[in-house]
Amino acid sequence: MKSMKISDAVVRRLPIYLRFLSELAMNNVLTVSSQDLGQKLNLNPAQIRKDLAYFGEFGKKGIGYDVLFLIEKIRQILKLDKTLSVGLVGAGNLGRALCNYNTYLKDSMKIVAVFDATPEQHGKVINNLIVQPMEELEATIKALQIRIGIITVPSTAAQQVATQFVAAGVEAILNFAPVVIKVPNNVRVHHADFTTDLQSLAYYLG
Amino acid sequence: MKSMKISDAVVRRLPIYLRFLSELAMNNVLTVSSQDLGQKLNLNPAQIRKDLAYFGEFGKKGIGYDVLFLIEKIRQILKLDKTLSVGLVGAGNLGRALCNYNTYLKDSMKIVAVFDATPEQHGKVINNLIVQPMEELEATIKALQIRIGIITVPSTAAQQVATQFVAAGVEAILNFAPVVIKVPNNVRVHHADFTTDLQSLAYYLG
Repeated sequence: MKSMKISDAVVRRLPIYLRFLSELAMNNVLTVSSQDLGQKLNLNPAQIRKDLAYFGEFGKKGIGYDVLFLIEKIRQILKLDKTLSVGLVGAGNLGRALCNYNTYLKDSMKIVAVFDATPEQHGKVINNLIVQPMEELEATIKALQIRIGIITVPSTAAQQVATQFVAAGVEAILNFAPVVIKVPNNVRVHHADFTTDLQSLAYYLG
Repeated sequence: MKSMKISDAVVRRLPIYLRFLSELAMNNVLTVSSQDLGQKLNLNPAQIRKDLAYFGEFGKKGIGYDVLFLIEKIRQILKLDKTLSVGLVGAGNLGRALCNYNTYLKDSMKIVAVFDATPEQHGKVINNLIVQPMEELEATIKALQIRIGIITVPSTAAQQVATQFVAAGVEAILNFAPVVIKVPNNVRVHHADFTTDLQSLAYYLG
């Protein structure tokens, strides 16, 4: 399946489908049409059918999609069928907020370690995680097989943290600092900068 | 310019261009090629030229783009040439973190009011903003001409906050709660749920 070139835009929509499908499943709704999905998610039904067709013929004409089957397939595609360990650097307000999101990630992903450069933070507990010094980052990442790193430090420190993550073997980074970071080509970076979200939102104001 | 249909993907990339161009300007770099932009931002240069061509003929063959002119144009397109007022509901860790981002938004956007439903929060000060009760939301939004609302409350409260925002006249919402909210068609909603970012990132792991 990985040999197919799936666009970033599609990969970004899959978790949105997954979230809504999980809500349906919790409410015991077992089939859903692309029309319903489109209406709830403000997306074009034709777009949704096209997105899901990348991964095989899931839907049935006149009936729609089997909700549980689709959840399982999307989880497989996104590699969420195994638990991925996540490490976070930067135990400020944003870092703390993200640790508290652990509940929403369910079993597919879990922040398992938190680091901070400030000695005053070391030993503090955030949602059952103990804040560790940066010196312990590499050993912890290797010991806990952490594959994803989250950066919630000020812009000036972001590049250094990214470099440390990469050196320790992290394969993908979610960067919340409003600055472009450089990593080797085999490491994937997503920017979760909220100023970017806000600025693109402004475009749609009348 | 608004009559052209510009895709959401393009609108989402413009703030990323803007951020990098602003860094260049701060370092007194006055021209930049699509190659340079592509390399720094991990994007295809042809894609960048196509994105920017939506808005007119900015680039010059063999010279590149005038950095300051491009900044000005993108700011106009994104309507960042005027200051937009933003209101936030939910003064928890995430809400506090976002208020502290005010510095990065510069003059184009500013969180000017913070609200929370919990009486214990009322009167507390976050980055010079006083946390107000929800009862003051509508009057404050009208008085301060707030056009964008940010939701950083738990999932169970998100829909109610969205409804209050819309009733008060907010035109666009950035929703951080991991739940789909319903608003009228003339109100734009972006989801900034970080679980979605993390889940799409997992796809790229080898």
